[in-house]
Amino acid sequence: MPPKKKAPAKKSSVTHVTKQAKDSKPPVPPEKSRPESATEADRMATKQREISVSEFFLKNRHLLGFDNAKKALLTTIKEAVDNSLDACEEAKILPEILIEVKQLQEDRFVVVVEDNGPGVVREQIPKIFGKLLYGSKFHSMKQSRGQQGIGISAAGMYGQLTTGVSTKITSRISAKKPAHYFEIQIDTARNVPTILKDEIVDWKKPHGTRVAIELEAKYQKGRHSVEDYVRQTILANPHVTLTYLSPLNEKEEYKPASKQLPKAPREIKPHPHGVELGILMKMLKSSTSRKVKAFLSRDFARVSSRVAGAICKAAEISENSWPKAIAHAEADKLYRAINATKLMKPPTDCLSPIGEDALLNGIKKNVEATFYTAVTRPPSVYRGNPFQIEVALAYGGKLPVDELVDLIRFANRVPLLYQQSACALTKSVLQTAWRNYAVEQSKGALPSGPILVAIHMASVWVPFTSESKEAVASYPEIIHETRLGLQECGRRLEAFIRKGRREAEALRKKDYIKSYLPHIGIGLREILRFKDKDEKKILDLLTDILERSRE
Amino acid sequence: MPPKKKAPAKKSSVTHVTKQAKDSKPPVPPEKSRPESATEADRMATKQREISVSEFFLKNRHLLGFDNAKKALLTTIKEAVDNSLDACEEAKILPEILIEVKQLQEDRFVVVVEDNGPGVVREQIPKIFGKLLYGSKFHSMKQSRGQQGIGISAAGMYGQLTTGVSTKITSRISAKKPAHYFEIQIDTARNVPTILKDEIVDWKKPHGTRVAIELEAKYQKGRHSVEDYVRQTILANPHVTLTYLSPLNEKEEYKPASKQLPKAPREIKPHPHGVELGILMKMLKSSTSRKVKAFLSRDFARVSSRVAGAICKAAEISENSWPKAIAHAEADKLYRAINATKLMKPPTDCLSPIGEDALLNGIKKNVEATFYTAVTRPPSVYRGNPFQIEVALAYGGKLPVDELVDLIRFANRVPLLYQQSACALTKSVLQTAWRNYAVEQSKGALPSGPILVAIHMASVWVPFTSESKEAVASYPEIIHETRLGLQECGRRLEAFIRKGRREAEALRKKDYIKSYLPHIGIGLREILRFKDKDEKKILDLLTDILERSRE
Repeated sequence: MPPKKKAPAKKSSVTHVTKQAKDSKPPVPPEKSRPESATEADRMATKQREISVSEFFLKNRHLLGFDNAKKALLTTIKEAVDNSLDACEEAKILPEILIEVKQLQEDRFVVVVEDNGPGVVREQIPKIFGKLLYGSKFHSMKQSRGQQGIGISAAGMYGQLTTGVSTKITSRISAKKPAHYFEIQIDTARNVPTILKDEIVDWKKPHGTRVAIELEAKYQKGRHSVEDYVRQTILANPHVTLTYLSPLNEKEEYKPASKQLPKAPREIKPHPHGVELGILMKMLKSSTSRKVKAFLSRDFARVSSRVAGAICKAAEISENSWPKAIAHAEADKLYRAINATKLMKPPTDCLSPIGEDALLNGIKKNVEATFYTAVTRPPSVYRGNPFQIEVALAYGGKLPVDELVDLIRFANRVPLLYQQSACALTKSVLQTAWRNYAVEQSKGALPSGPILVAIHMASVWVPFTSESKEAVASYPEIIHETRLGLQECGRRLEAFIRKGRREAEALRKKDYIKSYLPHIGIGLREILRFKDKDEKKILDLLTDILERSRE
Repeated sequence: MPPKKKAPAKKSSVTHVTKQAKDSKPPVPPEKSRPESATEADRMATKQREISVSEFFLKNRHLLGFDNAKKALLTTIKEAVDNSLDACEEAKILPEILIEVKQLQEDRFVVVVEDNGPGVVREQIPKIFGKLLYGSKFHSMKQSRGQQGIGISAAGMYGQLTTGVSTKITSRISAKKPAHYFEIQIDTARNVPTILKDEIVDWKKPHGTRVAIELEAKYQKGRHSVEDYVRQTILANPHVTLTYLSPLNEKEEYKPASKQLPKAPREIKPHPHGVELGILMKMLKSSTSRKVKAFLSRDFARVSSRVAGAICKAAEISENSWPKAIAHAEADKLYRAINATKLMKPPTDCLSPIGEDALLNGIKKNVEATFYTAVTRPPSVYRGNPFQIEVALAYGGKLPVDELVDLIRFANRVPLLYQQSACALTKSVLQTAWRNYAVEQSKGALPSGPILVAIHMASVWVPFTSESKEAVASYPEIIHETRLGLQECGRRLEAFIRKGRREAEALRKKDYIKSYLPHIGIGLREILRFKDKDEKKILDLLTDILERSRE
């Protein structure tokens, strides 16, 4: 295909503002003009319409984390920070982030997030910030915070919905190039960006991105607050420099605990055991390999040339078959042969866990307890996707005694503040038999006691229960791995508690003896005065004295 | 716009199979050809891509209810039955549904759902069954089971993904017209249907639709089973005739308990208090009214001409302003004026609750208990959307004593079998103080005891927590209303339990007296033989006899 053919299509996916009013009106079916003889089906057909993905999420905005004003503020910040951290780390830049929340009216705020990342090239700015389902991470198999290409555009769309104000973006990709300033809205009927301003501006930063979104919101301290989010973000990302300016003009500054970027996750190929028949057929059709054997070893992880040959043999397909020519029945055989073949687990350098030490340091900074422990599990696989679970636990100290366990959850280093009960990580805590570890737990409830549990799931693809990325879906492998991590922490906690109880018991006995000793002393004095040393009499006297001392 | 302009666009949204292989390959950016001087941002830009909505849901298929093989079977049936029931009811036809599940291999099934509905016109079949986000219910404000235009296409897409087999549809709209048979797949890279077969066939039915989907699945009885789903569907839809053929060749037939269609919900206009500034601005831009006052009273529910005038006055906008010409600042004023104006609640004939009697009959058929009660709450509103809560409760009888409450949930008459803990209806049960109603409950857990609770939410727009429509999002108004319904049932239950306890107590006393009476008799006999009637002696004797009788 000649590339020229694509140019006009590209252009038309961005609307400039003068055209918008005319274009954004959706086509209305001519319902009233139907003939009287039409059937019910005809009448219903006139109502059928395509739904734009922006319209869909606008109406279902709770799916994106915008179901109330307080959460809207948090979601907006979270989406912008996710993007900043991902961009910095991908460009191997130690992230320096500014979060600023300004209050304009009682229910209206501006969120500004600024980073020192690599910046965004001018042509990409409108789509990245003004089109849902547009991004670079969806098709890449490596751990990242963003994955769907929805978040930041959705935050801008919510701002536009509630205040009518455009998303404002400043970005610069190098000191040698100018900074670009955009004002953008989403044309929701078509899910394309509308550019209201596109200028070159002066900006002090050599590279980085600044995004400002005005929205209806509510600012509140305490649980699920921006402050909570910031603290937890630092816990899971000790390499980040972060400045937070609250609406009350308070300034919190976090210096990095570590000057080292986390190990950069590497992109991997799909693992054959995670690929369904339909995907396999699609991959065969679009492969550039000329032979099935080469297709198998080149397009998948963990398939050597030898293994590829064995798979072809088991599927009774010639190694030299042209992938594009493989029909349904043959593909089915190939699929079954692949799944019957033992393969190495997927490579795990696509993951970047926080690590036991960093996790321990993180919770030590956050809670005062008497016992801390952390476990990083070895990587595992669900639906072909590598993932890794980390669990940390704190006990005692200043943690409240009569409450349910305080649970904090992370996915790919991002704190998950909402939808706790929908989350597989929570279910894993519920399904762990805490009584085995000397911890109280009622049926169907979280355990209770002076305990904080932190769980992190790192994966090339975290299966969230909704687009707002607040809870992990309940794949059995994920629950299993998380329970193993919890059990390990539980066993260590039990050892600590039992040791504490033994010591307490010993102490109690010591106290007991101490309090009776003086009375035994008195008894002995009396006994020594006795003439005849009749055993029964002596015992009676001692008992009598001790009994009296208890009253 | 001349209608001719649209024709080609319409055609190109359906691919015929010969073209597919060429078209479905997504454009790959020329990553390797970038110059050495490029910045990080340039390198990253080459990876940015649009994500098709089908690709998105394919990768995130747990969002659609396809996260495991057992659930996939249920979701497929549910989506097809939802469509059948909606279509029948909209066409005022008493629904007759056939559900057939056939097992082909250990992990491969065919789901067939057939109805006597109005059928689908030929041109609409490919898009309805082969394109995500296409439908008639998304923009209509009235209660219906489907709402997103995703479900049935997603089920077909899952079938195609796991077995490579197309969705097969037969549909006929009238005895005077032929029946059409289609075989369809989704071109996921572009979210358009690919037609593999398009034929006229013989079909005995005068009107109706039959859909067959082959998929990887798992069939299992018990909790969350197809049988469970069928029973609960009948509970909430007593007007339905349903035949279910299981993979084990068992046949279950349900005759309708009521020969009456539920009251047909009416479509309403949006209520002004549920509309955000951004939507108001969009509505102003696309209004056909020439004056703001007319716009307000025509395009919204519950705005009379008088009220519209008052709103204009409060917003300091002339009643005669042209809606399209209203700028951002004025729209903001108008928005604030609308929200400061007292308005009637939205009309509620858009809702069709099950009703207390039908709900009671339903649970009586399902569980043997000693006490039943049901409450249909008056309609209420969240985010401008009318909704209504119904609660039914059964107690005692054969319900298990030592378990957590058995909770069944419905939304718009559809049983919700999964994601219980994520659901606002469940949270409402958790947040109700059951101990006030003589029911046990541990902190953070569901109440326990021989209790079944059924909750139904009817709404013009049920805010599900994900596209799989398994749980209701936690809007405070929904939780509030549900708790009121639960409290009412709780009070009635308490009265029953306390009455039971009083009766039991009285019975216990009666038993007590009965068991001591013979001994008192003996005592009295002894007393009568006494010569001197010394009171103390008599009492001592009686006490002694009674004490001995207790040993």
